[in-house]
Amino acid sequence: MDSDWDLTPDTSRKQRLGFDETIFCASKTPDQINRLVQGALKAEETLLLTRLGQKKFAGLSSELADFLDYDQVSHTAILGHIAVAEDPPRVAIVTGGSSDVRVAREAARTLQYYRIGVREIYDVGVAGLWRLLEHVDELQDMSIVITVAGMEGTLPSVMAGLVPGLVIAVPVATGYGVAADGTTALNSALASCAPGLVVVNVDNGYGAGCAALRMLNVMQRRPPGGEGYG
Amino acid sequence: MDSDWDLTPDTSRKQRLGFDETIFCASKTPDQINRLVQGALKAEETLLLTRLGQKKFAGLSSELADFLDYDQVSHTAILGHIAVAEDPPRVAIVTGGSSDVRVAREAARTLQYYRIGVREIYDVGVAGLWRLLEHVDELQDMSIVITVAGMEGTLPSVMAGLVPGLVIAVPVATGYGVAADGTTALNSALASCAPGLVVVNVDNGYGAGCAALRMLNVMQRRPPGGEGYG
Amino acid sequence: MDSDWDLTPDTSRKQRLGFDETIFCASKTPDQINRLVQGALKAEETLLLTRLGQKKFAGLSSELADFLDYDQVSHTAILGHIAVAEDPPRVAIVTGGSSDVRVAREAARTLQYYRIGVREIYDVGVAGLWRLLEHVDELQDMSIVITVAGMEGTLPSVMAGLVPGLVIAVPVATGYGVAADGTTALNSALASCAPGLVVVNVDNGYGAGCAALRMLNVMQRRPPGGEGYG
Amino acid sequence: MDSDWDLTPDTSRKQRLGFDETIFCASKTPDQINRLVQGALKAEETLLLTRLGQKKFAGLSSELADFLDYDQVSHTAILGHIAVAEDPPRVAIVTGGSSDVRVAREAARTLQYYRIGVREIYDVGVAGLWRLLEHVDELQDMSIVITVAGMEGTLPSVMAGLVPGLVIAVPVATGYGVAADGTTALNSALASCAPGLVVVNVDNGYGAGCAALRMLNVMQRRPPGGEGYG
Amino acid sequence: MDSDWDLTPDTSRKQRLGFDETIFCASKTPDQINRLVQGALKAEETLLLTRLGQKKFAGLSSELADFLDYDQVSHTAILGHIAVAEDPPRVAIVTGGSSDVRVAREAARTLQYYRIGVREIYDVGVAGLWRLLEHVDELQDMSIVITVAGMEGTLPSVMAGLVPGLVIAVPVATGYGVAADGTTALNSALASCAPGLVVVNVDNGYGAGCAALRMLNVMQRRPPGGEGYG
Amino acid sequence: MDSDWDLTPDTSRKQRLGFDETIFCASKTPDQINRLVQGALKAEETLLLTRLGQKKFAGLSSELADFLDYDQVSHTAILGHIAVAEDPPRVAIVTGGSSDVRVAREAARTLQYYRIGVREIYDVGVAGLWRLLEHVDELQDMSIVITVAGMEGTLPSVMAGLVPGLVIAVPVATGYGVAADGTTALNSALASCAPGLVVVNVDNGYGAGCAALRMLNVMQRRPPGGEGYG
Amino acid sequence: MDSDWDLTPDTSRKQRLGFDETIFCASKTPDQINRLVQGALKAEETLLLTRLGQKKFAGLSSELADFLDYDQVSHTAILGHIAVAEDPPRVAIVTGGSSDVRVAREAARTLQYYRIGVREIYDVGVAGLWRLLEHVDELQDMSIVITVAGMEGTLPSVMAGLVPGLVIAVPVATGYGVAADGTTALNSALASCAPGLVVVNVDNGYGAGCAALRMLNVMQRRPPGGEGYG
Amino acid sequence: MDSDWDLTPDTSRKQRLGFDETIFCASKTPDQINRLVQGALKAEETLLLTRLGQKKFAGLSSELADFLDYDQVSHTAILGHIAVAEDPPRVAIVTGGSSDVRVAREAARTLQYYRIGVREIYDVGVAGLWRLLEHVDELQDMSIVITVAGMEGTLPSVMAGLVPGLVIAVPVATGYGVAADGTTALNSALASCAPGLVVVNVDNGYGAGCAALRMLNVMQRRPPGGEGYG
Repeated sequence: MDSDWDLTPDTSRKQRLGFDETIFCASKTPDQINRLVQGALKAEETLLLTRLGQKKFAGLSSELADFLDYDQVSHTAILGHIAVAEDPPRVAIVTGGSSDVRVAREAARTLQYYRIGVREIYDVGVAGLWRLLEHVDELQDMSIVITVAGMEGTLPSVMAGLVPGLVIAVPVATGYGVAADGTTALNSALASCAPGLVVVNVDNGYGAGCAALRMLNVMQRRPPGGEGYG
Repeated sequence: MDSDWDLTPDTSRKQRLGFDETIFCASKTPDQINRLVQGALKAEETLLLTRLGQKKFAGLSSELADFLDYDQVSHTAILGHIAVAEDPPRVAIVTGGSSDVRVAREAARTLQYYRIGVREIYDVGVAGLWRLLEHVDELQDMSIVITVAGMEGTLPSVMAGLVPGLVIAVPVATGYGVAADGTTALNSALASCAPGLVVVNVDNGYGAGCAALRMLNVMQRRPPGGEGYG
Repeated sequence: MDSDWDLTPDTSRKQRLGFDETIFCASKTPDQINRLVQGALKAEETLLLTRLGQKKFAGLSSELADFLDYDQVSHTAILGHIAVAEDPPRVAIVTGGSSDVRVAREAARTLQYYRIGVREIYDVGVAGLWRLLEHVDELQDMSIVITVAGMEGTLPSVMAGLVPGLVIAVPVATGYGVAADGTTALNSALASCAPGLVVVNVDNGYGAGCAALRMLNVMQRRPPGGEGYG
Repeated sequence: MDSDWDLTPDTSRKQRLGFDETIFCASKTPDQINRLVQGALKAEETLLLTRLGQKKFAGLSSELADFLDYDQVSHTAILGHIAVAEDPPRVAIVTGGSSDVRVAREAARTLQYYRIGVREIYDVGVAGLWRLLEHVDELQDMSIVITVAGMEGTLPSVMAGLVPGLVIAVPVATGYGVAADGTTALNSALASCAPGLVVVNVDNGYGAGCAALRMLNVMQRRPPGGEGYG
Repeated sequence: MDSDWDLTPDTSRKQRLGFDETIFCASKTPDQINRLVQGALKAEETLLLTRLGQKKFAGLSSELADFLDYDQVSHTAILGHIAVAEDPPRVAIVTGGSSDVRVAREAARTLQYYRIGVREIYDVGVAGLWRLLEHVDELQDMSIVITVAGMEGTLPSVMAGLVPGLVIAVPVATGYGVAADGTTALNSALASCAPGLVVVNVDNGYGAGCAALRMLNVMQRRPPGGEGYG
Repeated sequence: MDSDWDLTPDTSRKQRLGFDETIFCASKTPDQINRLVQGALKAEETLLLTRLGQKKFAGLSSELADFLDYDQVSHTAILGHIAVAEDPPRVAIVTGGSSDVRVAREAARTLQYYRIGVREIYDVGVAGLWRLLEHVDELQDMSIVITVAGMEGTLPSVMAGLVPGLVIAVPVATGYGVAADGTTALNSALASCAPGLVVVNVDNGYGAGCAALRMLNVMQRRPPGGEGYG
Repeated sequence: MDSDWDLTPDTSRKQRLGFDETIFCASKTPDQINRLVQGALKAEETLLLTRLGQKKFAGLSSELADFLDYDQVSHTAILGHIAVAEDPPRVAIVTGGSSDVRVAREAARTLQYYRIGVREIYDVGVAGLWRLLEHVDELQDMSIVITVAGMEGTLPSVMAGLVPGLVIAVPVATGYGVAADGTTALNSALASCAPGLVVVNVDNGYGAGCAALRMLNVMQRRPPGGEGYG
Repeated sequence: MDSDWDLTPDTSRKQRLGFDETIFCASKTPDQINRLVQGALKAEETLLLTRLGQKKFAGLSSELADFLDYDQVSHTAILGHIAVAEDPPRVAIVTGGSSDVRVAREAARTLQYYRIGVREIYDVGVAGLWRLLEHVDELQDMSIVITVAGMEGTLPSVMAGLVPGLVIAVPVATGYGVAADGTTALNSALASCAPGLVVVNVDNGYGAGCAALRMLNVMQRRPPGGEGYG
């Protein structure tokens, strides 16, 4: 029986939404990824690949893999130059513990793909609150703070009570027992008593990066007027 | 036994976060609300009250109630002048059905309290997709689109695939069976295949308004540079 | 201790329900499957096998396996000729993303086993809505549209608002976080605001195929009268 | 503050999907319902209203209520003539117990609004299986069997093993303990070992009626050819 | 650091409850099992071992394993003679499908360890109801019917409506989607509309066997009087 | 529109299962109950009614109500003489706390309807274990012990470790937080480490009574032989 | 039918555990409470009553009610003198918001019944972290800190990272959406990354008070030696 | 791309809370663990490592591993001398079954790291209640009793009703079906009817040990006065 069906790439996404379609590798075979990378190389396009585990990366064609900038921690790969702007970053990414770094890095890499620099502050969870408080001044100047935390997910709530920028919570599936699948961290962020905290799916560093990108694109596009709110 | 304990208002919130403490009336008695309104009147401060049901509003001191601008749909009340800027709004609030309006209005009123105008487009859910498509051009120009939807919560995902601004999903507890408590709409938004969609708690129109406010405050405060991302 | 018990095949299913008993291989050993295939070969009967993973298929007797038309994507195998009618298909199968194809193909293969042709349209999820809208005219002519979608499962609701035929939703266990086990896509379809959408179990492409078969069998059996509803 | 927003009725639904927009009264005030009924009267249009509880019905304007055919059991009202065709019905609605009748009647009334007759067989749950078996011959001739059952929801699975037509399961929120919210009956239908059973949301008699209507509309529209499947 | 702690076997269980302590092997190492078997051999005691997977069984000392009657299907092993009484059995064990046999056999083996014969009737689920109805007369004479079923778990409810003896439901973790972990089959049995159905944990064939044993022990011990109930 | 449907009583239940159909009043109107009682009076039949709340009982026709033996605690009513046998009871019903008595009494009344005496021992939960231990000797002689417990539901497990008879757990929806809906007590009984404990639905005192009745009917019907198990 | 059953008070609890049996009024009628209070008055015993809502309290015999010290906030009543020791308290009770006070007061009243003074610090949740930090020095000297918080329940984790004493988390069912039933606050406390935080059931202020009492009783009873840990 | 981020150890934890930061190895690579151990060796500091599985331990540098006291049962390792005080222990650790020992030992090792001796009593679950009752006198003298139990988790409730000290429940993820993930044991402990029972996360032996340490540190620090409560 022939395979008489085909996939339908979203070719107008860049123009519509301001960013490229990204290759989510978790549900793709090495073969499929090889073809996508080769296609992009031919078309001289850049490419962001996420959820590309080390085993699957090792299974790619080595000629193609040489073109990829692969990050072991976040399981992301980037095809194309990465030239982050030198301006002081307007996005901070903060994690509660060391287990959250893999997800935080996915957000960081997503932004770097779009040449946006980020300030990364890791392992400053509230079990040792002084670690976070040391960074408050710096964080209060940020446009966007992405908080990445598993277990009980206290960090986003504390952060949203300390800084005026947009705070995005990325819950992480880390820990055991009631924390195992990230639902506790997720619900903790959703139920937060700190006003205006927004949330993405468990482990969705990529989504947090895209949300930040949407806001930065808007800021770039439309200079704010002088309405005097705030 | 004496009541030797007292509450601790967050007096520096405005300065820290850029917005006032809001009175969440669901867990307060009419008496407590009366005292808070009276206090604000004396101090010549404005006040936003949320989750103020009609019965509870009717139970307030009528002298005080006369000072409040009360909205029956959203169960919000505002103390102070409401003078929304005349500029074309940069925030749109869109609902899937008519049952979602009570939550959408909570977001609208929150922004209006801060003198921010909003564009309200209601009852354009995907069961009749043409209703939404008619508004796409207008929505693509918005900085922020707040989508408010219960039942299966399809609207936020469709919206985030159509417009480049920040899209905030507010799930609503409407419908019956698996839809009854809003969890389906919530999870649908979190699991969205559209990149960069952010989410707040079920029925949390106030939170969506605050998130929009955070972004607008940042845009006001810090003019974007010319880094060239996007 | 002897094995003094035996299984009880449902020998009258074809006559009662209009379709054969299918071999669900997930809970069977290669040995059991070998015997069932051999029995069918002897009896000159056709056979549909589902959930036959590649490892298990490789473990079958190679003589028997040669008689099977095996599909790697859907993990199905068919014993017997597959001669799909040449008429334009009255059933469409549509997926949101590429990860949903394995389940969509299970439905397609189930119908093909009964010599029913299907129109397969894959990877047209609402994150890029234009991809779906391009097919609306074609889909409005279908008797049955099987929608296969994981993540937030928006596709079935959008589809049921666009086409008049019977729309069957097959939720898929794809994605991560709240999407991981397919419950979000399932509940999203059940809670749909689009009227008359029907749903089967997560990943149950086979069940969707059988439901379509039931409807087609009825249409074949009993020509509709002229009552004038609709 | 003025109410400067309005709702957006789905005016092309009939033409697109083959049925009218229905008034879901659970989330509407008597006032809103009055206006909708009055509008339909003026426009000489028929109207189906669901989830119209007795208290809310009693709160409608009595002049308008006189035009409505109200059914206390199903909480539905119909504006317009109800002239069901005299042909033997092709749709059966079957319930497990007497508590399921309210939901079954919602499906029956939905079909009757479209002038489709139904055969209603109630209270034949499997605790007394002989009651169901007495009707098997009759049910095997039906095009569609809608099974309505709460508690453990055994009826749909048994039915789908006995009859060849399309079987639609409507789970009901009846019983107590693990049965209370209808989830057990819902999951039981979804997990059914009987092939091709399709399911709608808990208590969604209206949805089951609409699904049946979709199938009947297709049968009416497009006479089946002679492809020879089945 | 020394291991200065020890386990505490329940030495009086036989006398108190009428049955021996059973070795639940899932959480024990081969080493621990070897020692327990050796101890029983020395003491000339019989022993029932459950959840002894094939890999773990293969890891036991081969000298000891030779003394064990091992059953691959149920993952049970018995040390000691198995001499089931020749009387017609008063306990039947019935399964819905072939996947349920592993659990059914655990119940059968538990009873056989206590020299109680059972009638095993497998694969008679309600998708083909005639298979079950053929056995009704025989089952109505049984003192106890143990029903073992996964997926939607319809069998116990149907059975409890057909036979007067004690009906014990054993839900099974088989199937996929909402059926995967056995909760649907469990809740279906608990919510049953058939009166007097009792339930044990998912996959707990051993528990069902013990419950039957409790009832048979009581019947043995205390001849019923002539009170005339029933 | 006429009500052209009717209910289908299970007229052969007594003969098939050994007990009468019972009137579950929770989902019936006073009117429906009146008719059922009147019918039974005319036919000179006895009747057991459950879940008949005090308000609903007060709403019955007072002439009919005079014939009913109503129990405020269990919300049960019995039509007909209640003449419990004088023999020492073989069934004990034991509760953990005072809140569980309403459910325990439903079981007791169910058995009394069938002229079976029960020993009721209430409020002996494990928070004060000595209260339970004082009754162990008496309970070890019982054929059946029905344990009724909410909150954490410890009682059934402790009981099943102390007595050899059939132990039936009835979880109760009492307490707050994680205990509120009875799921904790239910799962606690299902997961019990004490072998052979069987369970019914939350608050299902009636079901526990029927299970006991099934066992007693078997004991009455078929004198145990001398096989020598146990 | 006579009420031939009786309750079994736990008369030796004081001696065994060091505290009295408490009257949980939620599941008792005013009549039952009247009798219990009268009994205690006659026996000249003190009594603690919890979950005694204002309506139920108003329904008590007014003569008896006069003897009770009733607290409207916590719904507790105390029979007997309340003479709290003048020493500086070793237990602090801290809440996140004003909605948590009703639960905090239940803990406070429980300890006061045992003549233990508490330091109450309310409404210092992390949305305004400075409010909490102002009290850190005082709290670091406490033996026990009971934290009472609903919504996302951040407070216990932050507290357990700041103070060395025993920290007990009492989750509160306050808020809406995912926060509504207190499960989010509960799981947040259980999953805490701060070591040694212990948790009680949602809204269980009484339980937290009893846990504190257990620790204080131990400290009273057994002076610590000089082993040198810590 | 360089790794321009670093972790932030909580260097003041000892001084603030009275205990060291512990290495949670589950989310760390052997490499990371090697560096942490080496660092501690250089700094001449002691170290407690938890969740260090046997495979991961085998993957550590063998030179470093030689310095570690590794416990296979609890998957803990200790760097530094372990000299437990000879005084009779004030902490008991009690398990229901043998599967719970791995978690109990994690608590024991945590306390031993701080030179606190514990009394370990294992496998005394309530299925054979006499085993527990034999130890009641000894346990009533303990300051703290840590109960470790999976399955239905009955042990903590029974214990808290028998002894006056602080009782800490550690639920364990053992068993199958509803017991598999430890939630049943967790909820059972939270819902306990025994007053003052406190709970930690599933499998969190380390947390229970830290809670005990907090209480012992307080007892050491602050001699109780003579207030006369209890």
